[in-house]
Amino acid sequence: MTMPFERPIRIRFSHCDPAGIVFFPQYLVMTNALVEDWFNEGLQIDYAQMISRRRIGLPIVKLDCEFSRPSQMGETIMLTLAVTAIGRRSIGIEIVGDCNGETRFRAKQVLVTTSLESGRSIDIPTDIATALAMFAPQPELSEAQRS
Amino acid sequence: MTMPFERPIRIRFSHCDPAGIVFFPQYLVMTNALVEDWFNEGLQIDYAQMISRRRIGLPIVKLDCEFSRPSQMGETIMLTLAVTAIGRRSIGIEIVGDCNGETRFRAKQVLVTTSLESGRSIDIPTDIATALAMFAPQPELSEAQRS
Amino acid sequence: MTMPFERPIRIRFSHCDPAGIVFFPQYLVMTNALVEDWFNEGLQIDYAQMISRRRIGLPIVKLDCEFSRPSQMGETIMLTLAVTAIGRRSIGIEIVGDCNGETRFRAKQVLVTTSLESGRSIDIPTDIATALAMFAPQPELSEAQRS
Amino acid sequence: MTMPFERPIRIRFSHCDPAGIVFFPQYLVMTNALVEDWFNEGLQIDYAQMISRRRIGLPIVKLDCEFSRPSQMGETIMLTLAVTAIGRRSIGIEIVGDCNGETRFRAKQVLVTTSLESGRSIDIPTDIATALAMFAPQPELSEAQRS
Repeated sequence: MTMPFERPIRIRFSHCDPAGIVFFPQYLVMTNALVEDWFNEGLQIDYAQMISRRRIGLPIVKLDCEFSRPSQMGETIMLTLAVTAIGRRSIGIEIVGDCNGETRFRAKQVLVTTSLESGRSIDIPTDIATALAMFAPQPELSEAQRS
Repeated sequence: MTMPFERPIRIRFSHCDPAGIVFFPQYLVMTNALVEDWFNEGLQIDYAQMISRRRIGLPIVKLDCEFSRPSQMGETIMLTLAVTAIGRRSIGIEIVGDCNGETRFRAKQVLVTTSLESGRSIDIPTDIATALAMFAPQPELSEAQRS
Repeated sequence: MTMPFERPIRIRFSHCDPAGIVFFPQYLVMTNALVEDWFNEGLQIDYAQMISRRRIGLPIVKLDCEFSRPSQMGETIMLTLAVTAIGRRSIGIEIVGDCNGETRFRAKQVLVTTSLESGRSIDIPTDIATALAMFAPQPELSEAQRS
Repeated sequence: MTMPFERPIRIRFSHCDPAGIVFFPQYLVMTNALVEDWFNEGLQIDYAQMISRRRIGLPIVKLDCEFSRPSQMGETIMLTLAVTAIGRRSIGIEIVGDCNGETRFRAKQVLVTTSLESGRSIDIPTDIATALAMFAPQPELSEAQRS
């Protein structure tokens, strides 16, 4: 079954704008940190080492967000990451930010494994692909399979 | 005819990540600054005053981006903003970032005029609506109109 | 005795620059978050409420830093805050960032309690002054006191 | 005579905090951009190339700031950079931010030329040293020299 990965984050002074709410690019800094935590703690792939030693990057190529309600300084947002697609060279994820039973934002992202030497996309390395498998989206069971 | 609004931006050290390219949330800080410049210089609406005196905010509710090619420190990106839709309480814009004839990213955004006192959406104020009209998307001429 | 306040922070991708090390303004975003945590958890003063409800700000008026060694993505830095001076309207603190027995940076800051309505400095409110007392720097014992 | 280097910067929404004024680490992002402009346009040393091709970094080792008055969104701050000291491996600068005849902040910085390969300090490269000479602080003339 699909395993989500969750981490709380506290909204800080530095995340907020003169309107007193989260400045939206800061949400994306948070989702970037969540992906980092997911690699380190969920996938057990050392993110810092992946970037600096293995020279594998994970740039984003597609991002679709909805910001449904503002978040205030001092609130704690629960971020939940789920894998929506695994390609040969790309990973689709969806991140939802909730607080007090209310969805604050939703971000769909497509990340591509890339060589930081050549700047080109590369196949997802085997260890990462293996780790990803346990977060893989579960295909819907067909009628035939169920019976 | 639709008037685009353009401004160049230089990619700086502070925009870039350990991979040496623009950290994607920084693109959104740039598009936010572009909207600010567009209000101040294109629409002739004082953005700072709108926020702090008139207490009108312009939060984003929807964001769709494609990041097609990375940008490097030292490059100058031309940002072009076009209005794609004007609603009663919302503005749809599209921002494209180009460099050397290459599109680096594309961001579609929906912004909503909001009271910073109540936190609720409000009708686009008249002066802003009037200013927006000259950036309004041109409807396609129908066959009948053309003839 | 003076009580220090400590919190670890993990160096993330978003903190780092194209040289692969912490971009120094990010250290100051970290020290700002540490002060926030210190208010919330050490002083038991709700920082978000202090800013948004009580309209008391804590701007910095003086900052002296030494950056002795670079920090890399993936490292965990232990931040330690100690109070060095308490005035009628100001708080002096020193924050040290250590990793693996090595000091990475040291920041001395003077913060001033300010009314966010008037923009003027105000006396440290009583509840904050009382809470600060337990973090107060211990005066050196005089010869007379010791004997 | 000492030549200062000046550039105006507009205070943007993204620079400001929930108190509606510049969040102080953002001043340091601005001073970093000023140093970049000074290298590119004042010293005629390509900053991006210095970092990415020549692999020379310019980390800060010492920073002393005074923040005397807050800056508001929409204001334009004139930043002025002057060289205060040139060492074999270090450059001392002072940056002042003024607006409407009022000093907003003052930052003294010591930057060290560093190999991004070894992480060690290196002598200031000749072309940079030559360029720096015209920004060098003028020694006070002694009585003897004047007569």
